[in-house]
Amino acid sequence: MAGSTFGTIFKITTWGESHGAALGVVVDGCPAGLVLNEENIQTFLDRRKPGVTKFATQRKEADSVEILSGVFEGKTTGTPISMLVRNTSQRSADYSEIASYYRPGHADYTFDQKYGFRDYRGGGRSSGRETIGRVAAGAIASKLLEQLGISVTAYTYAIGDIEINMENFDLNEARNNHTGMPDREAAEKAAAYLQECMKNLDSAGGVVACSVKNMPSGIGEPVFEKLDANLAKAILSIGAVKAFEIGDGTMAAKSKGSINNDCFCMKNGAVIKTTNHAGGVLGGISDGSEILLKAYFKPTPSIFQEQETVKRNGENITVQIKGRHDPIIVPRAVVVVEAMTAITILDMLLQNMTARLDNIQTFYNNIG
Amino acid sequence: MAGSTFGTIFKITTWGESHGAALGVVVDGCPAGLVLNEENIQTFLDRRKPGVTKFATQRKEADSVEILSGVFEGKTTGTPISMLVRNTSQRSADYSEIASYYRPGHADYTFDQKYGFRDYRGGGRSSGRETIGRVAAGAIASKLLEQLGISVTAYTYAIGDIEINMENFDLNEARNNHTGMPDREAAEKAAAYLQECMKNLDSAGGVVACSVKNMPSGIGEPVFEKLDANLAKAILSIGAVKAFEIGDGTMAAKSKGSINNDCFCMKNGAVIKTTNHAGGVLGGISDGSEILLKAYFKPTPSIFQEQETVKRNGENITVQIKGRHDPIIVPRAVVVVEAMTAITILDMLLQNMTARLDNIQTFYNNIG
Amino acid sequence: MAGSTFGTIFKITTWGESHGAALGVVVDGCPAGLVLNEENIQTFLDRRKPGVTKFATQRKEADSVEILSGVFEGKTTGTPISMLVRNTSQRSADYSEIASYYRPGHADYTFDQKYGFRDYRGGGRSSGRETIGRVAAGAIASKLLEQLGISVTAYTYAIGDIEINMENFDLNEARNNHTGMPDREAAEKAAAYLQECMKNLDSAGGVVACSVKNMPSGIGEPVFEKLDANLAKAILSIGAVKAFEIGDGTMAAKSKGSINNDCFCMKNGAVIKTTNHAGGVLGGISDGSEILLKAYFKPTPSIFQEQETVKRNGENITVQIKGRHDPIIVPRAVVVVEAMTAITILDMLLQNMTARLDNIQTFYNNIG
Amino acid sequence: MAGSTFGTIFKITTWGESHGAALGVVVDGCPAGLVLNEENIQTFLDRRKPGVTKFATQRKEADSVEILSGVFEGKTTGTPISMLVRNTSQRSADYSEIASYYRPGHADYTFDQKYGFRDYRGGGRSSGRETIGRVAAGAIASKLLEQLGISVTAYTYAIGDIEINMENFDLNEARNNHTGMPDREAAEKAAAYLQECMKNLDSAGGVVACSVKNMPSGIGEPVFEKLDANLAKAILSIGAVKAFEIGDGTMAAKSKGSINNDCFCMKNGAVIKTTNHAGGVLGGISDGSEILLKAYFKPTPSIFQEQETVKRNGENITVQIKGRHDPIIVPRAVVVVEAMTAITILDMLLQNMTARLDNIQTFYNNIG
Repeated sequence: MAGSTFGTIFKITTWGESHGAALGVVVDGCPAGLVLNEENIQTFLDRRKPGVTKFATQRKEADSVEILSGVFEGKTTGTPISMLVRNTSQRSADYSEIASYYRPGHADYTFDQKYGFRDYRGGGRSSGRETIGRVAAGAIASKLLEQLGISVTAYTYAIGDIEINMENFDLNEARNNHTGMPDREAAEKAAAYLQECMKNLDSAGGVVACSVKNMPSGIGEPVFEKLDANLAKAILSIGAVKAFEIGDGTMAAKSKGSINNDCFCMKNGAVIKTTNHAGGVLGGISDGSEILLKAYFKPTPSIFQEQETVKRNGENITVQIKGRHDPIIVPRAVVVVEAMTAITILDMLLQNMTARLDNIQTFYNNIG
Repeated sequence: MAGSTFGTIFKITTWGESHGAALGVVVDGCPAGLVLNEENIQTFLDRRKPGVTKFATQRKEADSVEILSGVFEGKTTGTPISMLVRNTSQRSADYSEIASYYRPGHADYTFDQKYGFRDYRGGGRSSGRETIGRVAAGAIASKLLEQLGISVTAYTYAIGDIEINMENFDLNEARNNHTGMPDREAAEKAAAYLQECMKNLDSAGGVVACSVKNMPSGIGEPVFEKLDANLAKAILSIGAVKAFEIGDGTMAAKSKGSINNDCFCMKNGAVIKTTNHAGGVLGGISDGSEILLKAYFKPTPSIFQEQETVKRNGENITVQIKGRHDPIIVPRAVVVVEAMTAITILDMLLQNMTARLDNIQTFYNNIG
Repeated sequence: MAGSTFGTIFKITTWGESHGAALGVVVDGCPAGLVLNEENIQTFLDRRKPGVTKFATQRKEADSVEILSGVFEGKTTGTPISMLVRNTSQRSADYSEIASYYRPGHADYTFDQKYGFRDYRGGGRSSGRETIGRVAAGAIASKLLEQLGISVTAYTYAIGDIEINMENFDLNEARNNHTGMPDREAAEKAAAYLQECMKNLDSAGGVVACSVKNMPSGIGEPVFEKLDANLAKAILSIGAVKAFEIGDGTMAAKSKGSINNDCFCMKNGAVIKTTNHAGGVLGGISDGSEILLKAYFKPTPSIFQEQETVKRNGENITVQIKGRHDPIIVPRAVVVVEAMTAITILDMLLQNMTARLDNIQTFYNNIG
Repeated sequence: MAGSTFGTIFKITTWGESHGAALGVVVDGCPAGLVLNEENIQTFLDRRKPGVTKFATQRKEADSVEILSGVFEGKTTGTPISMLVRNTSQRSADYSEIASYYRPGHADYTFDQKYGFRDYRGGGRSSGRETIGRVAAGAIASKLLEQLGISVTAYTYAIGDIEINMENFDLNEARNNHTGMPDREAAEKAAAYLQECMKNLDSAGGVVACSVKNMPSGIGEPVFEKLDANLAKAILSIGAVKAFEIGDGTMAAKSKGSINNDCFCMKNGAVIKTTNHAGGVLGGISDGSEILLKAYFKPTPSIFQEQETVKRNGENITVQIKGRHDPIIVPRAVVVVEAMTAITILDMLLQNMTARLDNIQTFYNNIG
């Protein structure tokens, strides 16, 4: 059934295939009055564009966005915002070979099993290009969050087993190297590691971290629409993600209550936490601390080594994948994690507005 | 807004507080014709009941379930199944102290921030007793999955840093020791570790693993309703879970494509995978292999050591929590993970039935 | 699939069968802070109780409600409110006859076709008793609307072809006669008509009107979640309703633009409309005028005359229905229409709160 | 909040404004394997195109559709189908006047109240052009229903107080005259009536009827997702509709049980009904008879007579609307009613597939 819509109040519906005519997204439920233009979107899209890092496919796509609706006189109108990116670099290759077998680690087999056949050109709907719609929508969510004073920032946290050192953290660095790592030293090591992978016709995985600053407390809807539950879904819905953590994540399972509990205290008249093992969420509701999450990405499945697999007709074969493939998707996935986080955070902020009768009374008294 | 409903076709709505009159769940969308009685539910509920392991609160609750609707002549009718468990052991304690401050690691503060006040008795809605409804619904989902030949099994994978050894795997062992570990040796080590925690007035975390066997391929709805995305949400919606993994999970990020890719091959006329690093999901769709996931639980926040925190009125204080509290929730959470997994798997199986026109034609030709 | 949930933010899930153990509803998404007790609910339930008018079944049911969750210290907490009504008067009749055939005008045949079998006792889920959950939820919605200064009032508008005269309108009259008509003269005529129907072993239909006063403008979410579209669904979801109108309704189709258009004008510094043919909705959004709708009910299908029908085994037979049946359901349906209208209006008011960025900024500035 | 999505399994999201760059729709959840091309869509769009009847605006728009995704090798793939229609005839008129006041009977005032401002060019999102997305999606739904042997047909039933005579029913006639009436005599009378309206600078309303033939029984999900409840919502979501009827509709309220009940009988081994007052729905579930519904449309609010209204700045004024406006929208709305009915029917057919355990077992046994 329909699976391409995400969000409840701020709702996005993405569409498009790698080698179809275009890709895009409809953003519905965006509040009216947000100043918005195509450049705001393009800036985000450019961060995931192929060809910008040496560890990305060299496919040439402008990924130029057009806003088709929902914006009037420079502001959102409250009606659906439709955004479109034309594919321009679909090569008229002969796909008959790739159509005939199932690439290991890809969704070829599972799409065939589900739908009976598949658009095999460039991975079709399961291509990384599917994230164009997410990123375009995320640009809007991020801009709106900014108006509320909230910032969402993602970066590469690890590549292979090379992790950044938080003491070296420098976001400018992340935006200016080929790995997305906010730590020049780690980035250099990671680059060397990736060169080695490429030389070996192999690929690498890694970790993207994301932080939400100035998050109000009280956001999240127990017991199923918890803030972290929805973030987990948002992140796992990104292709190639195999794990999600909030706060200390997997390490919390090895900790003890006396360490893992974050104590509260008063500071300048406000309640704060003295530590943040929780990653900003207690009982599925934001506690006013920084939200911290991590997304774990598997290595790119497209490698140039020989691999065993089967054909659609049931023959065992050995294949060697050709074409344009990233040795790692993590640097380009950074903006996707940021986008999905921003969309989720915004949606949950909007969901929270009806939590209390007194706020509703104030609202309707004011507009009455 | 409303957050207590989970699922799309097989939809559950839970309700109830720790010290309210009762807790329960409405299961809507359960197909008609499933043989079902209260004992089927009770068996599951008994696995999460307090007092069954020495590492659980000694609160005495029968947790006796009543089916109020949706079953007729021993079978489900297709209409909503309402199930009720009365609370019987709410102690008429003086809650004025606990009402006055925010327990570290608990949701007291965040509920107050969201709703303006909270039911402070025993944690109210954020109590572990909230999972009664999930487990009752999970019992139905599991029974229905059985009819399709699919089995869902969870167990304790780790406590603190003690992991099970898969070579010792014995599910009977898991069901019969106090830790839920399917490995006697690990269970004994873990028990000793927990005794130490209790002695130190501290608490422990751990990991629950869950496996789905005989899963058909083709299940999951790209790009947002992916099977693993919904499992991630289901698992993170459980209180105290801080991380989710599918397949190799976090380790995949350190792997290489040449290792992490699972090759396909033909076996007895069927496509199989020679390894299962993916945990049974490719592109968000089941690939016919075993589904393997892990849920990471933080240590129980209720510890008997002194802790710093703040009062509702803004005073800093030192508190020492009293009462009945598990030193670890993992053993009792096993059945909750199993329940949420079963509910999600079933819902996605039902969602998949409309994926192909030819199947729909067959369906309506047969009933026409 | 699941069909027993209504609403998006204020979300109700009803359950229960005519002759099952109980009926009830879970109200999720109710804002925190509403003063609420069981008497508030009981007052509404008593309006639909059997036996209160001479034109209703004499089945004796106290329909006594119990609130099981979501209310603490006399106020809603923001968590799900579960309400329960036990069935007490299910007669241990022999249902084998009624189980064997399909009553004309009832859902016996369609439930069997859909689910393969049915709970045939008293109509099971398709009984009028199903509305207990709606009315209990409607009581909460109405109480909350009151806090916003909005009132929802339903009454019998017509029985057979006897309509009320709006010049005689007296709501007290409606609450005190057997027809629910706010016009004593019409009520007396209608009573005579119903007596005649009963004498002839026949049944009657009628019309319920509902008015929403002090409705703010701007409520409704184009283009599918229009206020009137959701009201139409709410009303048609009530058993036996065959038509829905907003404002002039069917008569608008015969009108002309010059008459049907409501002109705007300024009055005391506010925009008002000089007429209200639209019934308070323009483009699916409330315009600040009174909301006016009508629900058309078919005659009760249970009549005591002989009727032709078929048995489950495919035999043609003549049947004569026995038991306790209302000659008309309209008087008892008044509170059901009021409840469904209140639930819909409230849900749409809550949905509207995120329409504008400036309001969202104000909201988060205030709580920040 | 987001209101531009309709349907649960077969889900459509429309977007676009009258004078924006384009309009369109994303259809998600369309089963894979349906043969589909742009001509299938264009045929439907041409039926609602301006300029095809003399009672429609003469705005010249090709309304030429482009399918951007979800179709591969001539068949739907199961992924979202995005369809786009560019606006080409937006006149660069001076809209400053129309921007300054609220047209009576239009949504100008309510959009301003809701969103704070509006796209005033040609009605923006509340324009009839919004239905382009619905009709494009309806073309797909209709084609898919055809594969299941189900046909959906709408036609003009009445204009002003001129109704068709069912004895003259001729669908070819409806498709070839300017009124959409399947009765030449009535069509001629209606044409004369409309000429008179135009002469008087006035507008007319009317009724569209829609019939669904070969509908299986068992379709509809009690108690809120009833077939007729969802049809009511679908129909009322169309601009200018003020009433909805199923079967005898409003007339049922004046009938008696002995007349209104449809008797069952056996015919050629199958259960049929001897009459169809119910319009094919009992208890919210299809009974296997023809589905019959009616949509009542108000007169076009844009009339060329002088009207009283107010300006945004609070001044009372007299206005005279100019431009291109249909004296009646009914003939062009026929295909919109057909589209919304087809979409709803299809969605409910898909929802029904999980009603019974035995069918689910058969399904998974077959694909296993």
